[in-house]
Amino acid sequence: MAPRKEVFEGVEWRIRVAADGSSGALVPATGLARKAWLGIKGLISGFALKVRMFVKKAWDVGTNDPRKVIHCIKVGLALAIVSLFYFMRPLYDGVGGNAMWAVMTVVVVFEPTVGATLYKCFNRVLGTFLAGFLAVGVHWVASQSGERVEPFVVGASVFLLASASTFSRLIPSVKSRFDYGALIFILTFSFVAVSGYRVDKLFELAHHRISTIIIGSSLCILVIMLVCPIWSGQELHSLIVRNMDKLADSLDGCVTQYFNQSGEGTNSKEEATDNKLQGYKCVLSSKASEESMANFGRWEPSHGQFNFRHPWKQYLKIGASMRSCAYCIEALSSCIKSENQAAKLIKQHLGSGCLKVSSSSSNVIKELAETVKTMKKKPSTTDLLAEEMKSAVQGLQNDLKTIPHLLNPSAIPGNKTLETACLEATTPTVTLMELVPVVKLASILIEISGRIEALVDAVEELAKLAEFGINDDKSKHSKMTDKTVSDAKQQTEGTMKALQRV
Amino acid sequence: MAPRKEVFEGVEWRIRVAADGSSGALVPATGLARKAWLGIKGLISGFALKVRMFVKKAWDVGTNDPRKVIHCIKVGLALAIVSLFYFMRPLYDGVGGNAMWAVMTVVVVFEPTVGATLYKCFNRVLGTFLAGFLAVGVHWVASQSGERVEPFVVGASVFLLASASTFSRLIPSVKSRFDYGALIFILTFSFVAVSGYRVDKLFELAHHRISTIIIGSSLCILVIMLVCPIWSGQELHSLIVRNMDKLADSLDGCVTQYFNQSGEGTNSKEEATDNKLQGYKCVLSSKASEESMANFGRWEPSHGQFNFRHPWKQYLKIGASMRSCAYCIEALSSCIKSENQAAKLIKQHLGSGCLKVSSSSSNVIKELAETVKTMKKKPSTTDLLAEEMKSAVQGLQNDLKTIPHLLNPSAIPGNKTLETACLEATTPTVTLMELVPVVKLASILIEISGRIEALVDAVEELAKLAEFGINDDKSKHSKMTDKTVSDAKQQTEGTMKALQRV
Repeated sequence: MAPRKEVFEGVEWRIRVAADGSSGALVPATGLARKAWLGIKGLISGFALKVRMFVKKAWDVGTNDPRKVIHCIKVGLALAIVSLFYFMRPLYDGVGGNAMWAVMTVVVVFEPTVGATLYKCFNRVLGTFLAGFLAVGVHWVASQSGERVEPFVVGASVFLLASASTFSRLIPSVKSRFDYGALIFILTFSFVAVSGYRVDKLFELAHHRISTIIIGSSLCILVIMLVCPIWSGQELHSLIVRNMDKLADSLDGCVTQYFNQSGEGTNSKEEATDNKLQGYKCVLSSKASEESMANFGRWEPSHGQFNFRHPWKQYLKIGASMRSCAYCIEALSSCIKSENQAAKLIKQHLGSGCLKVSSSSSNVIKELAETVKTMKKKPSTTDLLAEEMKSAVQGLQNDLKTIPHLLNPSAIPGNKTLETACLEATTPTVTLMELVPVVKLASILIEISGRIEALVDAVEELAKLAEFGINDDKSKHSKMTDKTVSDAKQQTEGTMKALQRV
Repeated sequence: MAPRKEVFEGVEWRIRVAADGSSGALVPATGLARKAWLGIKGLISGFALKVRMFVKKAWDVGTNDPRKVIHCIKVGLALAIVSLFYFMRPLYDGVGGNAMWAVMTVVVVFEPTVGATLYKCFNRVLGTFLAGFLAVGVHWVASQSGERVEPFVVGASVFLLASASTFSRLIPSVKSRFDYGALIFILTFSFVAVSGYRVDKLFELAHHRISTIIIGSSLCILVIMLVCPIWSGQELHSLIVRNMDKLADSLDGCVTQYFNQSGEGTNSKEEATDNKLQGYKCVLSSKASEESMANFGRWEPSHGQFNFRHPWKQYLKIGASMRSCAYCIEALSSCIKSENQAAKLIKQHLGSGCLKVSSSSSNVIKELAETVKTMKKKPSTTDLLAEEMKSAVQGLQNDLKTIPHLLNPSAIPGNKTLETACLEATTPTVTLMELVPVVKLASILIEISGRIEALVDAVEELAKLAEFGINDDKSKHSKMTDKTVSDAKQQTEGTMKALQRV
């Protein structure tokens, strides 16, 4: 055993053979302890795996959107500033222990976007102000009514006002603008009314609370607007543009894939295409985020290309219009997966028509995305492209009308089986069942083009409301010389002619 | 003028005619003041109208869901109790001014459902506890490092921990469970670390804060669970059942309306039908609420028919499955509105097949809704109904195959116009364009039946995970005598035979 012991330094199995030759059971030397060790080891490695997974996830969150990391740093910065502030004697002497409210304000009102932060700051200040006034009044009434009755007057007023403002939070129009304010109202009212101070001290408390909250809010607003600001409105704008592009890509991609299924590609290419095809799902699932962004957007001051009263609500209408297109694309994508495949002949017959409709439709959407993105006046190309889409639809409808001669009426299952009918036929024969998938696809495409027209209207409405191109015109007039204007005109005319030729 | 003056007591117009007969302009007697009065009157009446509208809206919110009113009363009740509590000497003497934290806790953790309140209570206590410990440690380190450096040590620690926990809130898995806890962690940490007390006082502060928060949380939990509790899980369960019923109704309604468009009804009846048809839209828009309910449901203890670890996540899968059906119904409903109407002949030919598929599909969905609702073991009728649906689909496919003899190949626009073809034909003639809408509808119906099969699977999975019918069996065995069992068997057999006859 000695040489082996030198080689193996790990676990060692010993077999003791009794001198009398009797058999002995082989029992692990360390029994329970070993089991416990294995169990703990398993737990630890499991835990380590979980931690590693978690760190990986966190890393992905950070690398996918570095602005999230910036947001975190901003929160830390604002809090560090406000706590250093707290250590300075002048502030602390001014408001005493209430300086804590400034720290709290920073923690609770700091949101990722400017709009959300402004909404919370405004609501917090307003709610505190209103509740403070009311509470001082109620407290005065209560203090006049004698020591015995006082708790019940205060309790009843808290009960009534808390119930009422909780109820107001359930009314949609209040909820969308003042939800947080109502919460702060209840909080401050209970706080001040119950505090049990004398009224002169109450005024001091209310004054301190208001001023510290204003200090905290101002600091938040400064940090959120000066350090890499993220605007809700800008985010909504980009989301809508991005979703339009995705919609156009998946519409075009679905139809192209259906008619070119024989075409082979590398795996990585296929994956990229799959991602493109699934783009419409983003449109389907972005309703909630669109609504909250539009909600916060209206609190934001003029920024970038957007004025204070930019029509954010119209973006919601555009979003709804895009979703109605996306529902159709969902139905379309089910055609692609369908087992019931269409005949090659019919595919050839309708293929070019369908592809024309899908590509012209997706061109219209892309042009709309460009219009929204640049916020320039609607270029005449949009109308041209919409006309092109309509004529492509007309063409597809004509193609559908010419199908019947491909159908052989004798191929009815009642009379003959499909196989014999196919074998017998000398002319190209297609059964209706082979026709159904393509006809369904074509008719959904026609439906989509109708919905895209509604989308065009919604974008035009936005362009009118937001006065797209007004700044554009002004800057043009001030900067462009006559020569450049005529150059631009020539260029536009050239493009239009080229488009008409297409 | 005198007798008229007695009659009219309102506004009076005076016309002064000069004695020399010259003309005089008719000027309102009160000029500016009158305008101002009218303006103010307009403002007041406008404001009154707005107030009336708001009150009406609020009234509707209350009458549509009386549980919302109960929720408000509960909030008021909890706050009134905690503030009366505050007036009692023992509590106030015990924790001093910190009793305020109990009031605050009640305001911020009280949510409409039990699950949401438990989530917030647990997070608040946990966040406070962790942050309190850490803050005391950091404060000790800071106080050892000298008076000059102290603010910077505290500031740096606040910066780092606030950034880190804000970042953790952006990781989905943390966000869904501990979002509020992370916020409270930052709040408490900043609060305690910055407070600037000596460490022995800090312990007292942390102790008071924890105990008052526990008092507030316990009170909330008591009130929310004892006074008309609303359970997130139960809500999710009912929502899914309700949505299934709506889905079934709108599927059946759409197809019936399409084939019976000639049938007339009273206006009120039509409105009710319209509401039914639009039911699928509820399914489309309920994703966000399903997710939040499932999220809160897992915090709830065993209640009603649900155990603590009820598979709430499976409800989300059922919801997704229902949405995929609803997308198809959306496409279906666009068929109904389509201007491109189908020929009567084709409608007659495919009508009964389509109606059979839609009614059998909606029967399957209704049966699934019943299964989920009662949480009983899947009745054998579900399988029967699913089989019936499949055979209806098969029938519809056969109907589609027999269409070609209705088509007249001579009616190709290229050869003859549609009108002449129709006039010439002695046999019933249908163009493909008249066929497209019905074929599209039929093919979407077939697609829907496929998606319903996925829904059946999702519900079966839920029945397996949640062990539907286990309590049922137990109670049966203990309560039912042999006679009732045999009676029930006979009844079931009768029903099954009747169904097979159908």
